[in-house]
Amino acid sequence: MKKSISIIGASGYSGAELLRLLLHHPQTTVNHLFAHSSAGKSVDTLYPRFRSTPVGGILFEEFHIDKIVDDDLIFIALPSGEAMTYVPALIEAGKRIIDLGGDFRLQDIQAYRQYHKREHNAASYINHAVYGLPEWNAGRIAAAQLIANPGCYATGALLPLLPLVTSGLVESNGITISSQSGVSGAGRSASVELSFTEVNETVRAYRIGTHQHTPEIETVINQFGASGTTVTFVPHLIPITRGIYSTMFAQLRNGTTKEEISRALSTRYSQSPFVRLLGEGIPEIKNVQHTNYIDIGWQIYDRNHQVIVTSVIDNLIKGAAGQAIQNMNLMCGFKETEGLL
Amino acid sequence: MKKSISIIGASGYSGAELLRLLLHHPQTTVNHLFAHSSAGKSVDTLYPRFRSTPVGGILFEEFHIDKIVDDDLIFIALPSGEAMTYVPALIEAGKRIIDLGGDFRLQDIQAYRQYHKREHNAASYINHAVYGLPEWNAGRIAAAQLIANPGCYATGALLPLLPLVTSGLVESNGITISSQSGVSGAGRSASVELSFTEVNETVRAYRIGTHQHTPEIETVINQFGASGTTVTFVPHLIPITRGIYSTMFAQLRNGTTKEEISRALSTRYSQSPFVRLLGEGIPEIKNVQHTNYIDIGWQIYDRNHQVIVTSVIDNLIKGAAGQAIQNMNLMCGFKETEGLL
Amino acid sequence: MKKSISIIGASGYSGAELLRLLLHHPQTTVNHLFAHSSAGKSVDTLYPRFRSTPVGGILFEEFHIDKIVDDDLIFIALPSGEAMTYVPALIEAGKRIIDLGGDFRLQDIQAYRQYHKREHNAASYINHAVYGLPEWNAGRIAAAQLIANPGCYATGALLPLLPLVTSGLVESNGITISSQSGVSGAGRSASVELSFTEVNETVRAYRIGTHQHTPEIETVINQFGASGTTVTFVPHLIPITRGIYSTMFAQLRNGTTKEEISRALSTRYSQSPFVRLLGEGIPEIKNVQHTNYIDIGWQIYDRNHQVIVTSVIDNLIKGAAGQAIQNMNLMCGFKETEGLL
Amino acid sequence: MKKSISIIGASGYSGAELLRLLLHHPQTTVNHLFAHSSAGKSVDTLYPRFRSTPVGGILFEEFHIDKIVDDDLIFIALPSGEAMTYVPALIEAGKRIIDLGGDFRLQDIQAYRQYHKREHNAASYINHAVYGLPEWNAGRIAAAQLIANPGCYATGALLPLLPLVTSGLVESNGITISSQSGVSGAGRSASVELSFTEVNETVRAYRIGTHQHTPEIETVINQFGASGTTVTFVPHLIPITRGIYSTMFAQLRNGTTKEEISRALSTRYSQSPFVRLLGEGIPEIKNVQHTNYIDIGWQIYDRNHQVIVTSVIDNLIKGAAGQAIQNMNLMCGFKETEGLL
Repeated sequence: MKKSISIIGASGYSGAELLRLLLHHPQTTVNHLFAHSSAGKSVDTLYPRFRSTPVGGILFEEFHIDKIVDDDLIFIALPSGEAMTYVPALIEAGKRIIDLGGDFRLQDIQAYRQYHKREHNAASYINHAVYGLPEWNAGRIAAAQLIANPGCYATGALLPLLPLVTSGLVESNGITISSQSGVSGAGRSASVELSFTEVNETVRAYRIGTHQHTPEIETVINQFGASGTTVTFVPHLIPITRGIYSTMFAQLRNGTTKEEISRALSTRYSQSPFVRLLGEGIPEIKNVQHTNYIDIGWQIYDRNHQVIVTSVIDNLIKGAAGQAIQNMNLMCGFKETEGLL
Repeated sequence: MKKSISIIGASGYSGAELLRLLLHHPQTTVNHLFAHSSAGKSVDTLYPRFRSTPVGGILFEEFHIDKIVDDDLIFIALPSGEAMTYVPALIEAGKRIIDLGGDFRLQDIQAYRQYHKREHNAASYINHAVYGLPEWNAGRIAAAQLIANPGCYATGALLPLLPLVTSGLVESNGITISSQSGVSGAGRSASVELSFTEVNETVRAYRIGTHQHTPEIETVINQFGASGTTVTFVPHLIPITRGIYSTMFAQLRNGTTKEEISRALSTRYSQSPFVRLLGEGIPEIKNVQHTNYIDIGWQIYDRNHQVIVTSVIDNLIKGAAGQAIQNMNLMCGFKETEGLL
Repeated sequence: MKKSISIIGASGYSGAELLRLLLHHPQTTVNHLFAHSSAGKSVDTLYPRFRSTPVGGILFEEFHIDKIVDDDLIFIALPSGEAMTYVPALIEAGKRIIDLGGDFRLQDIQAYRQYHKREHNAASYINHAVYGLPEWNAGRIAAAQLIANPGCYATGALLPLLPLVTSGLVESNGITISSQSGVSGAGRSASVELSFTEVNETVRAYRIGTHQHTPEIETVINQFGASGTTVTFVPHLIPITRGIYSTMFAQLRNGTTKEEISRALSTRYSQSPFVRLLGEGIPEIKNVQHTNYIDIGWQIYDRNHQVIVTSVIDNLIKGAAGQAIQNMNLMCGFKETEGLL
Repeated sequence: MKKSISIIGASGYSGAELLRLLLHHPQTTVNHLFAHSSAGKSVDTLYPRFRSTPVGGILFEEFHIDKIVDDDLIFIALPSGEAMTYVPALIEAGKRIIDLGGDFRLQDIQAYRQYHKREHNAASYINHAVYGLPEWNAGRIAAAQLIANPGCYATGALLPLLPLVTSGLVESNGITISSQSGVSGAGRSASVELSFTEVNETVRAYRIGTHQHTPEIETVINQFGASGTTVTFVPHLIPITRGIYSTMFAQLRNGTTKEEISRALSTRYSQSPFVRLLGEGIPEIKNVQHTNYIDIGWQIYDRNHQVIVTSVIDNLIKGAAGQAIQNMNLMCGFKETEGLL
């Protein structure tokens, strides 16, 4: 029997991408689409590309807990800071939840306060959350009630870095990450700063050293065994719609060879259908756009005793909605790739 | 002695472009920059590219009529509908004005109401206005107190079409204009519709048959002698920052030859420094970006007894600030090209 | 049993898109991929996005007729002028063929010579060809041996125009079409003119009145009953990767109403799964990218007794590979939408 | 009296930008434009934006040494590897030369061979060359016969880094540079890899650790006193036309404060008209496009004892033609900013 799904925050870009993926998922049905600011409008009014598809005529609605009583799983695709107002009631109602925002990724509420510039008002629920990085956490994900779906930048950085730091091949301190993101990562919003004229034909770094994915990356690396890890992370906004390019620099531990690096990655990901290892090949964003893949390349730079690692993802898929579906597949006992190839 | 200039609405894209051009104009000094929503901020806060230039540190201010008492000329670079609240007092104060918006381009207030969807509240001042198309109106511009600077689309359409219709070489009825504009034409504003993610990698037509430059084009053609002219005009928004491409179709009058078309254009514009005639060459937007030129090409399409005319301008320069400076040059007795080459 | 498919010219953009679509088509298997200049390379060398998919490791090969002896259907995705060297032998071998190029679209070899600037060297095979516009030719397509898959611009123009001209609601003479195409329409080729730096942030019209889709559009309109039709067609190259926007202008016959226009379109396409009629809604390219849909909008412009029709397609899908699959579905008795939704 | 200038390799992007700048330089006249592949064509055939300017009608010519006998200064704007075939004869003829390519930037011909993959065939002339970074080498530039104009990436990295490493505030080893360049940096050339369809909406790193600007950066840092410096440099190609964004990471020496960093930069560049120091402000490419400015920002990242430095330039101006004019100004005793503001 198909699983019944609702989405809270269905009208943003991640919500729309979830919807597109669920359309092609054979084991789910979409029940309710909640979107406060668009309540009463149809899906294809906001996203005309859904015209004449099965979901095109569905109306966005105001959320009410009674409406989801028969659902098997709830996606929350709201901006960070909003999920925490929904999660407690959903948990108490026994619902399984995948939160695509940042409210339940950090265990440390001090770090939450520092990086998100707000108080966490559902702190007692944080320990319900399992970090939804399927390649590293599949077992716990399968059993979880609440999934904190990873941040887009964090996904692009963690998948390449985790095998290297947890195997002790690189120094866990001082890892440097320079990432470039397409503009859809900033969400569907009205602002001069995100207008075409301001963003086109330019690049800007932002939140240098203060981006909220910094503690997320550090927390997860520490959690998987490389304690004391610190990273330097600089995101840049570039004029493309979708995709994240991450270029990472780590110091090699004495004697680490290229073969060890390659083996650590290939061993770890031999059974991971969405991780493509390019060796010395160089990733390009266009190769993963509209897919759930992450492509990873690496080069040893002997001159400075570094490994340079590059990765690409589609921020709306492997960095958001696709990974959420992958988590759903694990939670529901579906094939991990269902609806994603 | 240098002319003293102030700008009302200086913080938008046309205002900033005016400022850039005035920086290099040897016979003017910038006095005040008025911008209500940015009052108190410096020019280089809003537009960091002006850092370390002479105008970078100027503060935007609230407008007050006393501040411009010594100015020789006032530019108004506000959205249509706002200039009409300033113009009466400026006229009464004896100031010369160049309005880059649409409030004084249409003589017919009914048409103004229909296309702008608002009432005109300074109707008695419309007849003070001279339409600021220098290639056609230089004499009246030189003597004018109030200039209605032409609309961007109107400029791109009128300069190629006027010689053809006024010489009777083409039918003045049923001229069809399909134009494509860069996004800066929509101004500096916060809206989902103009966000990078929504505008990038797509095209959309808008205000089909209802755009306010339709009556502007018709009015001006009629005014220069081809009465009864009607045009069909469809603008499109495309993912570039600056530039307008206009492709126009007109029916040839019986027997009109390619040579007559060419002669009409070359005769008319032999003394016009900013009109470049390409003959059967095809214009490209990149050739006029950041310049005050208009490039015009034409082909006879015998099969349908048409002439196909194409033109390109930079919407912020020949379509706005550059043409305004050109008008100022004529009004002040400067060389027409001063500050614009 | 699955149909065995090979592609001649598999390494270009249309070939790669065919391959992507066939990957998800449940009733076909890909046999050979022929690509002279890339022979010996793997699919994922040229198109790394196919890594780890079933077709990623397939090698491009030199064509030989013996290799396709067991195939049910051959796609030819070569530049115009090349298919005619393959088709005769394939026809004689009894193969069914879908040619995505322009060699078999025009019945008139004089027109072929004039617009393609070359001789047709397989003229006796032209009359085998059926024009592959499924919404208008489904019966003949199902039985055809050789399909001339429509040109991208022609598809975007014909689907909206055919119902209007064949029903006599608009004048069939003097229809004007202004189209804008993404750069992938020019194919995968090395040229300064198509380099990013030359194409970005600009627009240019090209082949004004001389583009080879002009006679294609006229031929097909005449063939479906509106004889004597002539069109004026101007294509423009714009800085997007995929998509075609067509804005079309036709004179209304006396008394034609908006309702008649709407009824002509809705009646004609009530059973057409890939045609979406927007009425006075305005199409946008982004709504059809990566799909086989065409979106069509229309407005009556009374002032000039015109109907203004707009359409959007993805040039590589409904304008090439998707429509080819749609034709294959009809030829093989599959569901028309198989592999395309 | 005006200086007479010729350009060898005038038809590429740097050559065209030189030409545009020289047009507005009051103390020079353009004598010959040499461009082998475009010989016989006019400037405005290749670059229609020069139509109706004083240089539009100049014909590109084949080079001959006799033609430049009266010139005061020769710019060479050829791809690396070609200047070395011209320089010896020019030097012997007593000409002053500014080479915009890479042939005379590296003192070490082994490094030249390794990074450029070719032999240097004018090695004995390398020691004539002065590295043309005006902010650091003005005295030697003024007296030089041969200027090696800095590489675009090198300029964006060296100007921010030199004050920090030479003052001993940061470790000179292990500096990491991640740069993003617009596509014009690859020159005017026909290749599939640089076609719009391949470059648009994507990012790719290239020549990771092997780019020829790596030894250039190291050489210059070593030359100015911080010996033993090694850098890790990763360039990325991004879909914009002009501009380079460089994000750099250096380890702070014990006790280095933000104030010391700021002072080192502001002291060094207090008299440098093209260096704009933003402090904790973050540079954006659009603020320097079409200018000779470099904007530099910096942040202390205490957590990892690093300073993160960001810079932006226009690769064709401060990264090529503009800096070349700046060097010319110094060589000829003109004002440093002449023709550049």
